[in-house]
Amino acid sequence: MKHGANIYKYAKELGCKDSEIIDFSSNINSYHPDIKLTPTNSMLVKYADTTYSSLKKSITKKYGVKKNQIALYNGATSAIFELLKSLKQKRVYLYAPLYGEYEKASKEFDKTVVKINRFKNLYTKPKKNSIVIFVNPSTPDGNYYNLKKLFKIWQKQKCQIIIDESFLEFENLSSVRNKIKLYSKLYIIQSFSKFYSCAGVRIGAIFSNKSNIKKLTTPMWNLSSFDVEFLKERLPDKEFDKKSKQQHRQNKKELEKILKKSKLFKKIYKSDSNFILVKSSKAKELFKHLLKHKILVRTCGSFDFLSDKYLRFGVKDATLHKKLAKALKSFYS
Amino acid sequence: MKHGANIYKYAKELGCKDSEIIDFSSNINSYHPDIKLTPTNSMLVKYADTTYSSLKKSITKKYGVKKNQIALYNGATSAIFELLKSLKQKRVYLYAPLYGEYEKASKEFDKTVVKINRFKNLYTKPKKNSIVIFVNPSTPDGNYYNLKKLFKIWQKQKCQIIIDESFLEFENLSSVRNKIKLYSKLYIIQSFSKFYSCAGVRIGAIFSNKSNIKKLTTPMWNLSSFDVEFLKERLPDKEFDKKSKQQHRQNKKELEKILKKSKLFKKIYKSDSNFILVKSSKAKELFKHLLKHKILVRTCGSFDFLSDKYLRFGVKDATLHKKLAKALKSFYS
Repeated sequence: MKHGANIYKYAKELGCKDSEIIDFSSNINSYHPDIKLTPTNSMLVKYADTTYSSLKKSITKKYGVKKNQIALYNGATSAIFELLKSLKQKRVYLYAPLYGEYEKASKEFDKTVVKINRFKNLYTKPKKNSIVIFVNPSTPDGNYYNLKKLFKIWQKQKCQIIIDESFLEFENLSSVRNKIKLYSKLYIIQSFSKFYSCAGVRIGAIFSNKSNIKKLTTPMWNLSSFDVEFLKERLPDKEFDKKSKQQHRQNKKELEKILKKSKLFKKIYKSDSNFILVKSSKAKELFKHLLKHKILVRTCGSFDFLSDKYLRFGVKDATLHKKLAKALKSFYS
Repeated sequence: MKHGANIYKYAKELGCKDSEIIDFSSNINSYHPDIKLTPTNSMLVKYADTTYSSLKKSITKKYGVKKNQIALYNGATSAIFELLKSLKQKRVYLYAPLYGEYEKASKEFDKTVVKINRFKNLYTKPKKNSIVIFVNPSTPDGNYYNLKKLFKIWQKQKCQIIIDESFLEFENLSSVRNKIKLYSKLYIIQSFSKFYSCAGVRIGAIFSNKSNIKKLTTPMWNLSSFDVEFLKERLPDKEFDKKSKQQHRQNKKELEKILKKSKLFKKIYKSDSNFILVKSSKAKELFKHLLKHKILVRTCGSFDFLSDKYLRFGVKDATLHKKLAKALKSFYS
């Protein structure tokens, strides 16, 4: 599986509805309050303000960046492609493992890709004037890195720095957004779909300094008006923020406990985000076993420096965790 | 004005709400039945099927193309950029005037742009192995062209042919979709926002043969799930189709009558779509006068081979037409 969340393919294989699949392969916030937004004609019929000014205002408030430091795209994937298209440097260092999209986008724009194994050679020095890409917290392990030493190396090498912070908000972790002013070659990729519980809402951002943002091209009207309105309501929702974090803490502990208790894993990685990586010599069989229970987990064979011995579990809620616990228990029986 | 529908800019200028501006500059279908679709968690939280298979099924039924002849983008603008990126030919012939996006996209991908004045030199022969782009019905005049003779020229010259049919559905006009099988270098751009009354729903398509569609890249999850569900309901809605066409006929006649009766225009173009182009030596003053009445029309100075003596009026409904009639009447008083 090249990406998580392909419940449609597996539902077909199992001959069940996609809604029956319990999707531990995706990393969406498991807190899902009812959706209050009602779509109206005035929302859907007319053309939106091409600058999406009011959504940017909500983002400035939540993320502490200025309006002119934001470029919006229909999802973080589109943001990644646009950014790699616009950067002229030809050599890209990927701190791997990471999402497949970064390699795909780098190759699309004819860049030379060099992979740094961040488990082993984190402080490898990139060549001067290259692009470095780091996902923090990382995936699929969920480790949060203190980037201080890396930033020093990168700055000395005059690198274009791309930090993906799409999984930062679940826990109390610090962002590099405050460095935008200090280092002119810094770009931050921000997905809004993970923490804000909306994979179907296609909005992602690039944060950088004003002059970098100006150089990016954004197709006119690239965002769904419904999605814009949805995010404008959810970003400032303090109740949502608080409950999400509360429940996340509780749910993550619970999932860790279940995974430990199962005694099926040689290694359970300490995660700073809402998914947990595990290693097991029986990973392949376990994947198949869980699928029989309509539980889909993320296989990790497509991640660099990992193998099909690794699986990733998204943090879900008590109900789904119970089902997982039951399915894990029956593995040896 | 480089594009219609910038009600936000003019609302600011007038110091009023954008909802107060009557937007004759945009060309969206004026029939707006209530929106019945209710967004749910199951729609927004999870990742969509990356192939958007069920929406493609609705499109096949309405447009008579096969699933593998469809590529979907977040709006026709994105589709245009993707198509011009993927086509390797370096010379582009634009049958002008037409939307600014085609020139912008051609230049973005370093192509040489040649403009053919379709009012004067329609049958100019393009160089071999170039790209030709034709919007039919055309904008801003709304003229529908029988493309038979042009196709012969284009095919002889082995051109990549792009036909934009985004304004075709308002009237009983024939499409070139049935030529996809016959000519392997044909691409059709289809916006769904005009006829289906949803500028805020960002979905557009490229129709072409299977092997061309396969070569296009589409970013993963580039469509809003809400937008997908909306279009899946609206495309097969026969009542919507019928009422839209009925009301369009009536409304267009009414608008033509109002424009004629005003005696303000030297020329009123015969339109085959849902907007009407007019010429007036007083166009600039008229634009300002209408704006005082909070009526925004499309100035045409940015269109090739036209000038600021031209204005375009979108077909609206009886209520808005009355307001326009009143404002036109008061021009000389």
